[in-house]
Amino acid sequence: MIFKHQEPTEIMPPRNAFYAQSGGVTAVINASACGVIQAARANSDRIGSVLVGRNGILGALREELIDTRFESDALIEGLRHTPGSAFGSCRHKMPDPLKHPEEYERLFDVFAAHDIGYFFYNGGNDSSDTSLKVARAAEQMGYPLQCIGIPKTVDNDLPLTDCCPGFGSAAKYIATSILEASLDLQSMCETSTKVFILEVMGRHAGWIAAAAGLAQDGEQSAPQIILLPEVAFDEARFLDRVREVVERDGFCSIVASEGAQTADGHFLTESALKDAFGHTQLGGLAPMLASLIRDRLGYRYHWAVADYLQRSARHLASATDLEQAWAVGKAAVDLALTGENAVMPVIVRTNDTPYQWHIDSAPLEQIANVERKLPPEFIREDGFGITAEARRYLQPLIEGEAYPPYEQGRPCYVRLQNTLVPKRLPGNYDL
Amino acid sequence: MIFKHQEPTEIMPPRNAFYAQSGGVTAVINASACGVIQAARANSDRIGSVLVGRNGILGALREELIDTRFESDALIEGLRHTPGSAFGSCRHKMPDPLKHPEEYERLFDVFAAHDIGYFFYNGGNDSSDTSLKVARAAEQMGYPLQCIGIPKTVDNDLPLTDCCPGFGSAAKYIATSILEASLDLQSMCETSTKVFILEVMGRHAGWIAAAAGLAQDGEQSAPQIILLPEVAFDEARFLDRVREVVERDGFCSIVASEGAQTADGHFLTESALKDAFGHTQLGGLAPMLASLIRDRLGYRYHWAVADYLQRSARHLASATDLEQAWAVGKAAVDLALTGENAVMPVIVRTNDTPYQWHIDSAPLEQIANVERKLPPEFIREDGFGITAEARRYLQPLIEGEAYPPYEQGRPCYVRLQNTLVPKRLPGNYDL
Repeated sequence: MIFKHQEPTEIMPPRNAFYAQSGGVTAVINASACGVIQAARANSDRIGSVLVGRNGILGALREELIDTRFESDALIEGLRHTPGSAFGSCRHKMPDPLKHPEEYERLFDVFAAHDIGYFFYNGGNDSSDTSLKVARAAEQMGYPLQCIGIPKTVDNDLPLTDCCPGFGSAAKYIATSILEASLDLQSMCETSTKVFILEVMGRHAGWIAAAAGLAQDGEQSAPQIILLPEVAFDEARFLDRVREVVERDGFCSIVASEGAQTADGHFLTESALKDAFGHTQLGGLAPMLASLIRDRLGYRYHWAVADYLQRSARHLASATDLEQAWAVGKAAVDLALTGENAVMPVIVRTNDTPYQWHIDSAPLEQIANVERKLPPEFIREDGFGITAEARRYLQPLIEGEAYPPYEQGRPCYVRLQNTLVPKRLPGNYDL
Repeated sequence: MIFKHQEPTEIMPPRNAFYAQSGGVTAVINASACGVIQAARANSDRIGSVLVGRNGILGALREELIDTRFESDALIEGLRHTPGSAFGSCRHKMPDPLKHPEEYERLFDVFAAHDIGYFFYNGGNDSSDTSLKVARAAEQMGYPLQCIGIPKTVDNDLPLTDCCPGFGSAAKYIATSILEASLDLQSMCETSTKVFILEVMGRHAGWIAAAAGLAQDGEQSAPQIILLPEVAFDEARFLDRVREVVERDGFCSIVASEGAQTADGHFLTESALKDAFGHTQLGGLAPMLASLIRDRLGYRYHWAVADYLQRSARHLASATDLEQAWAVGKAAVDLALTGENAVMPVIVRTNDTPYQWHIDSAPLEQIANVERKLPPEFIREDGFGITAEARRYLQPLIEGEAYPPYEQGRPCYVRLQNTLVPKRLPGNYDL
């Protein structure tokens, strides 16, 4: 496979762009797609079609490319208010290009066949790593390609950006949900349930759990306990605190990050449960904590596990988050058009209140495989809550409501046509 | 205890009203309180103060009465958009008045001390029974009291009313949530999770689970499987269906009512789980179904349990539900003022599309202890979904959005002052 360097000429048509979504989706990832496609359409003299990978990067490898030219402007605009992935996403780890160049050769064969000169890859930590690998492989193999990562993750754990699109909406959903559920709990605590536990996402970093602190009106208000992965779980201290809070307030509302772990680094959910049939029962953390509380303290409890609900709740998206998700998509195109490569648009905060921010860019090699945890100064001294500094950081990210349109009581989420471009390469590619 | 009958005279001041919330709360129960208080204020020549039981009927027995005169019109109006119970609720079963008249004697002592002539009791099945008992006891003991039940329950299982305030909002929340989570699931189903299970409330009747069917665009769209308490769970049939759906669609979205049960009437969640410490682990159904699917079919799964989130999600209330919740509160006062006793305002549907309804009244004795299950004609022949007739019934109930105001990205829910009326009876009352 040899790629010839072509000198740009005035009559050369603009090259096409490849865009893909990667990993777990969010309530606003499609707003980034919208930003990319709208910016590309506004620069049709310099970017041809935006071809989207069906089910993420797999679509590129299989030459399953969605031609977004068949989607109307109205449908593309509708991506702003549609959660999930409009084109499909995947978890696929690209190999080391030095050891296994075949997958990259295939990728560039497909790209060459469709005249793709831009690679926009929308994802989190692993995806930044993939974008960087693709950029390096393209350079090594002499395929002319500009690779731009686009940040996205409800986990909010990418470095160098003020926050990650997707997080603000999950944060707003969790803060609102625990506020509401705590009002419910408090209503009946005298004669009924005294403890409520909401399990939230965040396998390695406690950003979403921390956002639950935004539901509080003061340090002692609900949720009175937040369990973060960054703070080692101590069963006795936890139970003491639950009892103190119930004795003080009559009820205790708890938000637990799924990543909560013991001092020796084991997830609490690793301890296996067996059901009546002898099957091992995996997690979750919320029912485990609930039975611990019942057995040791005797309190009646309820628990909830938000799971996908928290990352797909477009009905309660943060307007700030939505705006940023669109902006990083547009900025990715702008960066490509200014000749950048192996970078990611990042959000730079210049003021807390009112929240002011703009988009800058950062090299992918400083982002890939770096995980940003909750900093110590965001964690209250007792480990069960967040500090004023955390609140200052988190609060602007959930600001503003950006409701989707509704019809017959249901949100109207768009479904694209997702028409595939005819294949130009022979045969199928087996992964 | 002897109550003398007083002839009304022109100079007699209007008697006070007692209002209490009972049992599990909803996203819109406070809108009913708002309806009662606003209607009473509009008829201040005929109704004195609305005194509210702190923590439900317990407040009456303990003479802990909240004087709503201290709450501004603006705060009372704010009850419309505040979930949970603004005054506290409880689960307390009143005894048979013939066998144990003491609790009723105490109740009427408190009512007499505060010149209470109206009893408004806002609740579900058990509460209708309580209202009826209070009405009968008042008659037997010669205490002049008009008892009006006000319907409320997310379970939607009261007879004689088109629906129960609280249900429409829970239904809208569940339909929206499963729509969103299914988009998330579908996004990555090729390489990741193939099955998602959302557990919803409904211990004895499948109304909330049925509402998930409103997320469907056609019989085969997500959620492809709904498990109802009205349909006996058959493990083999269920697993076959999950496999068929995954093979057909690539993913399977499931909504399971917590009340799902086997043919012999046992809840699926009754089978005990043991955790690593040997503690019995209660429920939930979603993780149990998930491990069954993993063990028998080998699919990757995610699960969520909505629990309190679904009945407190005022952020996504149905405008129809909200309007009805307020209307039954107001109607309760109207019924009292027209001299009615031992009745409940009920919602009468006169048209499906557009939804048209009005308020009528029904005798409490026809409502108390009658549980309305999902009728057979609402359940699809295969047992895993709802019929067009069910859809026609359910759809109007989730219509319209009624967003609360927000501040700093969070809903603004009101907190009342809840000032107690000074006690007029000696000592404390031990329950």
